[in-house]
Amino acid sequence: MSILRIGLSDQTVSVEPLVDELSGGRRLTGEILSADVSPGCNALGPENALVWAPGPLAGWGISCAGRVSMGGKSPLTGGIKESNAGGSLADALAGLGIRALVCNGAFPGDRPGVVVVNALDDVQLVPADAYWGLGLEDFGARLRTDFGPDYACAAIGPAGELQLPAAAVCISDVRGDLFRFAARGGLAAVMGSKAVKAVLVRQERRARPAGSGFRKAVRDFHHTIQSNPRVQVLRKYGTASTVMLTDSLGALPTRNFTQGTFEDAERISGEHIHDLITERGGEGTPTERCMSACIIQCSNVFPDVEGRRLVARLEYETLVMCGSNLGISDPDTIAQLNQACNDLGLDTIETGATLGVAAEAGLWDFGDGERALELVAEIGAGTVLGRLLGQGCAIAGRTLGVRRVPAVKGQSLPAYDPRGVKGTGATFATSPMGADHTAGLTIFAPVDHHDAQGQVALSRDTQITRAAYDALGLCAFLLGSTASRPELVTEILNAAYDRALTPDWIAELGRRVIDMERAFNHRAGLTEATDRLPAFFREEPLPPHGEVFDVPSERLSSIWKPDDA
Amino acid sequence: MSILRIGLSDQTVSVEPLVDELSGGRRLTGEILSADVSPGCNALGPENALVWAPGPLAGWGISCAGRVSMGGKSPLTGGIKESNAGGSLADALAGLGIRALVCNGAFPGDRPGVVVVNALDDVQLVPADAYWGLGLEDFGARLRTDFGPDYACAAIGPAGELQLPAAAVCISDVRGDLFRFAARGGLAAVMGSKAVKAVLVRQERRARPAGSGFRKAVRDFHHTIQSNPRVQVLRKYGTASTVMLTDSLGALPTRNFTQGTFEDAERISGEHIHDLITERGGEGTPTERCMSACIIQCSNVFPDVEGRRLVARLEYETLVMCGSNLGISDPDTIAQLNQACNDLGLDTIETGATLGVAAEAGLWDFGDGERALELVAEIGAGTVLGRLLGQGCAIAGRTLGVRRVPAVKGQSLPAYDPRGVKGTGATFATSPMGADHTAGLTIFAPVDHHDAQGQVALSRDTQITRAAYDALGLCAFLLGSTASRPELVTEILNAAYDRALTPDWIAELGRRVIDMERAFNHRAGLTEATDRLPAFFREEPLPPHGEVFDVPSERLSSIWKPDDA
Repeated sequence: MSILRIGLSDQTVSVEPLVDELSGGRRLTGEILSADVSPGCNALGPENALVWAPGPLAGWGISCAGRVSMGGKSPLTGGIKESNAGGSLADALAGLGIRALVCNGAFPGDRPGVVVVNALDDVQLVPADAYWGLGLEDFGARLRTDFGPDYACAAIGPAGELQLPAAAVCISDVRGDLFRFAARGGLAAVMGSKAVKAVLVRQERRARPAGSGFRKAVRDFHHTIQSNPRVQVLRKYGTASTVMLTDSLGALPTRNFTQGTFEDAERISGEHIHDLITERGGEGTPTERCMSACIIQCSNVFPDVEGRRLVARLEYETLVMCGSNLGISDPDTIAQLNQACNDLGLDTIETGATLGVAAEAGLWDFGDGERALELVAEIGAGTVLGRLLGQGCAIAGRTLGVRRVPAVKGQSLPAYDPRGVKGTGATFATSPMGADHTAGLTIFAPVDHHDAQGQVALSRDTQITRAAYDALGLCAFLLGSTASRPELVTEILNAAYDRALTPDWIAELGRRVIDMERAFNHRAGLTEATDRLPAFFREEPLPPHGEVFDVPSERLSSIWKPDDA
Repeated sequence: MSILRIGLSDQTVSVEPLVDELSGGRRLTGEILSADVSPGCNALGPENALVWAPGPLAGWGISCAGRVSMGGKSPLTGGIKESNAGGSLADALAGLGIRALVCNGAFPGDRPGVVVVNALDDVQLVPADAYWGLGLEDFGARLRTDFGPDYACAAIGPAGELQLPAAAVCISDVRGDLFRFAARGGLAAVMGSKAVKAVLVRQERRARPAGSGFRKAVRDFHHTIQSNPRVQVLRKYGTASTVMLTDSLGALPTRNFTQGTFEDAERISGEHIHDLITERGGEGTPTERCMSACIIQCSNVFPDVEGRRLVARLEYETLVMCGSNLGISDPDTIAQLNQACNDLGLDTIETGATLGVAAEAGLWDFGDGERALELVAEIGAGTVLGRLLGQGCAIAGRTLGVRRVPAVKGQSLPAYDPRGVKGTGATFATSPMGADHTAGLTIFAPVDHHDAQGQVALSRDTQITRAAYDALGLCAFLLGSTASRPELVTEILNAAYDRALTPDWIAELGRRVIDMERAFNHRAGLTEATDRLPAFFREEPLPPHGEVFDVPSERLSSIWKPDDA
């Protein structure tokens, strides 16, 4: 396995050997960024780097093992960022023997380009003037026409081209459609600053390890996933299945985090979305895999009343942040917002949070879906107002004079109110990623989520496991089935790489990743002072339960201290 | 001497003894903020504090010794801020035995108020609803009507009320007019966040120290100032006298820092401004004191063609940042911009830099004074665009997608291009204040300002002296006459406070102040990574001389290291 490094400024390509065959994903993006990028640099300058890294198990047809980590210094948080997605890119990179694809510098004179990787020794840098400005829907069609169906892809839309920190990077799915997103942290703006419209990687199969040990380990792994009850729910109802749980805990962000339950929660619930998709039929499907060989298949295609695809995928975070958080309950309106964001290449979480803040500032009324769609279009048009909203909720909120701004380290909270699920609040406060739904959710843990006691330890353990999974390219939805049985993962690694890893190795890996990220962040100025939620979460009791976020700050401060339990 | 502390949230007043009678100014604001304010707090939240502190020599009729330091956590830099001004407030505080006036918390429910200090034991918190929204011109008139002529004052205009970080705090001058500004760092936004429209302090005389030693020390001090040649120039031509020097060095910010000389520099020069004022006569005067007993009298009143006051004061930083930096050469247009900013309570430096960035973004054309005036009015009106411009040049530049953004630590550069005067560039990079014209200018030092060699040591020494002067409430324009003779200052202090300070004490004081500020900043996340100029200063050669800012980063990193020379 190799690291393929592309110098965009001087159009150079080099190949380096991978030092540790087990390194990959969020670990490897962190290692490369720590070595290549000065933490104090301008995230939108050529001195930033972008890395795409699969985990060590990608390309072997293992369920849930094909996430691709994308890394760079974030223009939102100012710290190190890893954002991962499913789709086909991880498998493609693994198939070509690439454990990390690194882009340094920027295309000269801002002449946009596409990076085409056919093999380790066949990389082409193709002018992208004809593609610049295209929405992702049109761009996807053009890619198919111009390059054929054999490539996996990471691409940006107009929002990334405008270098807006709310922009998201699109990753092609198993059908080759541009429907998956490495959404958070604004890495699409970094891609835009480098004038890289897309990275294309030719899809090849990766040879599977020989031996019955490997096959047995994968079989055990698959069997355990398949028999997990939460997996059944995810397959049937998708990620939207979480809506009613969050609502029941009073943790469902509603109208810019002023309520913890939504009177119309059922309309955006997994059950209702499932029924709508099933009723409407046509191109819709309530169950779809985002990665090859996936057993869970939590994704969907949401059709309009006539059965034509309205958006793929309509997921939990969007249903909440562009739904209840905006006082919008109509699934079709949310799907339109989702599709508008997808086409522009905008993170629906950051965008939903920003629109929530904008409603509070009086720019529009909660619930007015038409106006929300206009504002999203404004972002894509790059007007002054659009650019402001595209900066994300922290900058927009500050500029518009809003006090209730749900952001940590400059990045908006995802779809969990910390007052209703306090362990997740501890994660949002202390994760080196900023408030991020992929950093360590605690909502499925069997604890009292309103009790501040024990939440920091729960958050820490969850963050560590999650970091390890991200470093291995594993999907978070495994956690319910394999987190308590880490040997299921180490046995595959041992068989594939001839190692003798013990289950402890997983936790050590996760901790090492987080420590590395925190070291980068500290040098970037993200000191402990930034490991806090906004004051309003401590000060404003959340209806209907009246909870505030009361996890003591001293506990948040000690979460990464060695002797703390 | 006492510290008067006002709890705005619960309307409490308390008096504490001052521990060290020599503490004051920037030292005391730093000491109080370090103790009171959590470095990671929201600068616009009630947990921030505001401090006004005169130096130990205020109120005794000593020339140049009546600056008032204003301190708080800055919403622009995110670090500790001291912004000082002349006027009558320092003398008034000293007259009442107050070495620091501290406002904690915020007026409840955002009901604005005025703090009226008649004596240590007579403080009134007066509702300010009737004043909220008034420009400073009208507010000044109302204050005189409602409170009489006996108060010195610190006040905010509409920009501060809107909590815009480009807002400036106005300090009343020796005539009682609201014409002086503690402009930088956005402390007016902090005042606005606390809903404090103004602080009024009754003016009383402070008893002078007895003894001939004091009188003689003051006489020597005055004599030295008076005989200094630069003081003669300042008295005649004011601060604008620096324009042609900066232009000759190719360090005059022109059209958003794309040129170092301005083809119309002579029109904004001290000589031309002086001649205009003299020719027009009427209310105009080319020579005016900003503090009682001032010998230098570098201030002015600029009249229109009919002799009516157009603005007071038209000074160097404004002539450049709202003049050459915007491609505007007509003194009347600059004076109108200045007056518009003054009335709204806006920092002309931050505003000029932001308009420069906005011109580069295509929002208006350099040189179009009418449109510039409209944009300033837009800031005061609080439109989305106005609010964006009121965030200052770093946020506005980022949002508008401009790469050439002249800011350090989030605060715009003042009127010196670092490529033409490199020691000052080192100051802008490394000062705990962010890029600030009061942090340590090197332009008057007899060195080759284009040679990178030795500039860091020069910057450090200048920053240290300047910090000490700020801690003593002394005007920067003394530096030419007294910096090399520190005993002139210590002898006054020794006589007044019965001490035996040696001249070394001045440098130790300055260093202590800076170390304290850096410790605060570090905890706030302003690590060494922020001690840098924007990349374009290193990358873009500045016409006409083609210099880049080439002071090595390692030298900037070592400026505050103990063993470095």
